[in-house]
Amino acid sequence: MEKLTIAELKALFNYMATFSTSPRENGITRLAYSAVDEQAHHYLIEKMQTLGLIVRQDAAGNVFARLPGFAPDLPAVGTGSHIDTVPFGGKYDGVVGVLSGIYALSQFAPKQLKRSLEVIIFRAEESSRFGFSCIGSKVLAGHVDVKSWQKNRDNTGFDFFEVIDKVGYNATHVAENRCELSDNYFSAFVEVHIEQGKCLEVANKKIGVVTGIAAPIRFSVTIKGHADHSGATPMSQRQDALVSAASIITDINHSACKESCYGTVGTVGKLDVLPNSMNVIPGMVTFFVDIRGIEVDSMLRVENSMNLAIQKASSDHGTEIEVRCISHETPVKLDSNICKTIEQICIERQIPYMPMLSGAGHDTMKMASKYPSAMIFIPSLFGISHHVDEFTEFEDIMLGADLLKETLAVLANQ
Amino acid sequence: MEKLTIAELKALFNYMATFSTSPRENGITRLAYSAVDEQAHHYLIEKMQTLGLIVRQDAAGNVFARLPGFAPDLPAVGTGSHIDTVPFGGKYDGVVGVLSGIYALSQFAPKQLKRSLEVIIFRAEESSRFGFSCIGSKVLAGHVDVKSWQKNRDNTGFDFFEVIDKVGYNATHVAENRCELSDNYFSAFVEVHIEQGKCLEVANKKIGVVTGIAAPIRFSVTIKGHADHSGATPMSQRQDALVSAASIITDINHSACKESCYGTVGTVGKLDVLPNSMNVIPGMVTFFVDIRGIEVDSMLRVENSMNLAIQKASSDHGTEIEVRCISHETPVKLDSNICKTIEQICIERQIPYMPMLSGAGHDTMKMASKYPSAMIFIPSLFGISHHVDEFTEFEDIMLGADLLKETLAVLANQ
Repeated sequence: MEKLTIAELKALFNYMATFSTSPRENGITRLAYSAVDEQAHHYLIEKMQTLGLIVRQDAAGNVFARLPGFAPDLPAVGTGSHIDTVPFGGKYDGVVGVLSGIYALSQFAPKQLKRSLEVIIFRAEESSRFGFSCIGSKVLAGHVDVKSWQKNRDNTGFDFFEVIDKVGYNATHVAENRCELSDNYFSAFVEVHIEQGKCLEVANKKIGVVTGIAAPIRFSVTIKGHADHSGATPMSQRQDALVSAASIITDINHSACKESCYGTVGTVGKLDVLPNSMNVIPGMVTFFVDIRGIEVDSMLRVENSMNLAIQKASSDHGTEIEVRCISHETPVKLDSNICKTIEQICIERQIPYMPMLSGAGHDTMKMASKYPSAMIFIPSLFGISHHVDEFTEFEDIMLGADLLKETLAVLANQ
Repeated sequence: MEKLTIAELKALFNYMATFSTSPRENGITRLAYSAVDEQAHHYLIEKMQTLGLIVRQDAAGNVFARLPGFAPDLPAVGTGSHIDTVPFGGKYDGVVGVLSGIYALSQFAPKQLKRSLEVIIFRAEESSRFGFSCIGSKVLAGHVDVKSWQKNRDNTGFDFFEVIDKVGYNATHVAENRCELSDNYFSAFVEVHIEQGKCLEVANKKIGVVTGIAAPIRFSVTIKGHADHSGATPMSQRQDALVSAASIITDINHSACKESCYGTVGTVGKLDVLPNSMNVIPGMVTFFVDIRGIEVDSMLRVENSMNLAIQKASSDHGTEIEVRCISHETPVKLDSNICKTIEQICIERQIPYMPMLSGAGHDTMKMASKYPSAMIFIPSLFGISHHVDEFTEFEDIMLGADLLKETLAVLANQ
C-alpha cells in the first residue's frame, strides 16, 4: 500500500473539481452518468488501484475499493460517499467523503487490521438528473423500484435504466436486484460529509456526530380562489388564494417552531401565484411543503396542524384546497455504538464535537437499513451548499479524514 | 339630426369589436394610438358627423362631438368614455360609455335642450401602452406632466409625445397644456361604464349610481431573508422571507376587512419567491400591495397597520424589509346633485339601482377635478373584465344608454 500524503490529498481534491461541464467560476456541474462523471469515476478507480486497493464496479457503476484485513472472511467496515453534483454545485458535497475514505484506507497496510475496509463511491446521489436521489445506495440496499424509476426521465427523455445501459453498465442486473449487498457484507458503515447547514458554525464545533438522518414528508398544495379585480371587489366577496396560503404558511412555521425541540423543521420553499398581477386578486396559488425530522410523531403533529390550517383557510376564505402527498419517508436513527466510538475519539483528541441530526438525506440512510451506520459532519462555511460558494477549510477536511481513519481502525478491530 | 335606433346601436357595438389586432376568440386588442385604434376613432368621427353632430379633435387626438342647445353659450353637459383596450381585453370596457353617449345625443334635435351636449372619446385610458392611465382626460384637465410622461416608454421604445407626433397629432400643443378645457366648458359630466366587479350582480341591481372613485395607494415590498437548506437549518436559525411575507399579507387582509364598511380594500396580487425551490428556505420575496378606497383616513389606517406588520415581521423573522411607495393617489367623491338626479330617474322608471363606489379608475376622475361629475355603472357578468369573457347583456347596455339620455336631458335643461 502507498500512503496518500496530506499534500497529495489536497491535490487530488483540487483535481476532482476539473471534472465539470460548467466554467469554474459558476461551480461544478458533474451530473450522474454524464461523460465527465464517468471520467471522474475512472480517474479515481485508477488512483485507488495505484494505491494498492482492490477495486471492482457493480452493474449500476457503484465503485468498491477494498483493503483486506487479516480476517478477510469477517464482515468488512465500510465508508464512502458520492462524487456526482447538482448543476453549478460545490466542490465539497460528496467528494469530501469519498476522498476521506481513500485517504483513511491508504494509511493502513493490507492485513494490518482485523476486518477488511472498503470505500464505496455511490452513483447518482443527487436527484438532479432523474428527480430522485441516492440511486446507487438504493441499488445496494435492494430498494430498486423498477416501475417507479422508469417513470422518471432525465432532460433528454431517458430513464435511469436506459442511461446506465448506454453508458455500459447492466440495467437488467440492477432491475433484478443482483447488486444488493449481502446482509453480512459490512459490520459497520461510516460516511464523512460536509454539514450543508450552519449548526457547527453557530455552536463553534468542528465535528458533528450524526445520530439520525431526517426524512422529508412532502406535500403539494393547490388553492383555488377567484381572480377578481383588486379595486372592484369588496373584501366580503373575495376568494383570495394568497391570503388563504398565507394563513397555512404561518401555521406550518408556527407548528414546526413548537416542535423544534425534536429537531423537526417545516418549510414552504416554492410558491407560485396566478395570474400574479398587481391589480388582480390571486385566483390560484400552488406551493410545496417540506416537513423534516427524526421523530415521526413530531413530524405527524406538524402535518396534522397543517391539515387543520388548510380546513380553516378553505372555510375562512371560500377557497378549494387540494393537498397531495408527494413523499412520506421514514427518518433513520443511526447506530449509537458507532456514534459513541466517534465521540470517544473526539474526546481523546480534544476535538470540539457535538451530536446532531442531519436534515439532508445521504447514502448512509440506505446503508443504515442493512448495517449499523453513522456519519461524521464537518463544517460548511455559512451553511452554503449546492452552490459555487460552498466552502470548507482544508484543515477541517483533514480533521474529518483523520477522525474517519481512527474510527475505521477501531471498528475494524472489533 | 338622425336618431340612432336600438338595432343600429347594437350593430355599431358589434362593428367596433372588428377593430382589433388579436383574433376574435382571444379578445379585443386595440392599444392606444395603434393603427386599429386610429381607424376606430376615425370610423366613429364619420359616424357622428353623419348623425349631425359637430365633431372636432384636439392635439392629443381626443374626439369631441357636440349637439348645440338653444343657449349654446352656457357651459355644456358632457359625457363620454374611451375605446382603447388592454391586450386581449373585452368588447364592453369603454366602448359602452362612448356608444351610450352617441346614442343619447342622437335622440335629441339641435336646440331642443337648453345647454349643448357633448360626447368625448378620451384617448389612452388604459395604461397598457405607456404604463400610466387616463392620458387623454389628464390632458383635458391640465394634468400634463411632461418629464414624468417622457420616462414611460412603450414596447417599441417611444414615449407618449413621440407617439402622438408620429400619428399626426401635436405633442408641443399637449406639452404646453393648450388642450386644457376652460373652467366653464361643462356644467356637468356623466360617464356610463361597465362595473368590472360583481356588486350589482350580488345585490341583484341593474344600475350603480357611482358616488366616488377609489384611488390606489400602492407599495412594492422586498423582503430579504436567507436562502438556507430546508432540511439542515433549525427553525431557530432561519430568516424565512416567505414566512415574513405571510404575516404581512394576513395583516393587510385583516385590516382591509376591518375597514370594509368604508369601502376600503387591500390586495397583494403579485408575489415572487427566490430561489423558489422546494428544499430551500425562501431567501427573498417581493410583492405588491394595492390599497384602494374612497375614504382617505380609512386607507391610511390600512397603510399604517401594514407598516406596523412589516416592522413586526422584520423583527420576528430577522428579515430586512424595504417598502417603496409607487403610487399615492387621492380618491374622488362624485357630485351628489347629479347622483340624486340619476337616482330620481331610476325611482321614477322603477329601475333597481344602488349607490356604489368604483374600485377601478376612470376618465371621470379627471373630469371631476374641474366639473361636477358622476358615473352610471351597468352590470358585468361575474365581474369579469379586461378579458375575452367580459360580458354585459345588451338590454343592460340599453338600460344604461336610456338612463344616460334622460339624465343628460335633465342636466341640460338646468
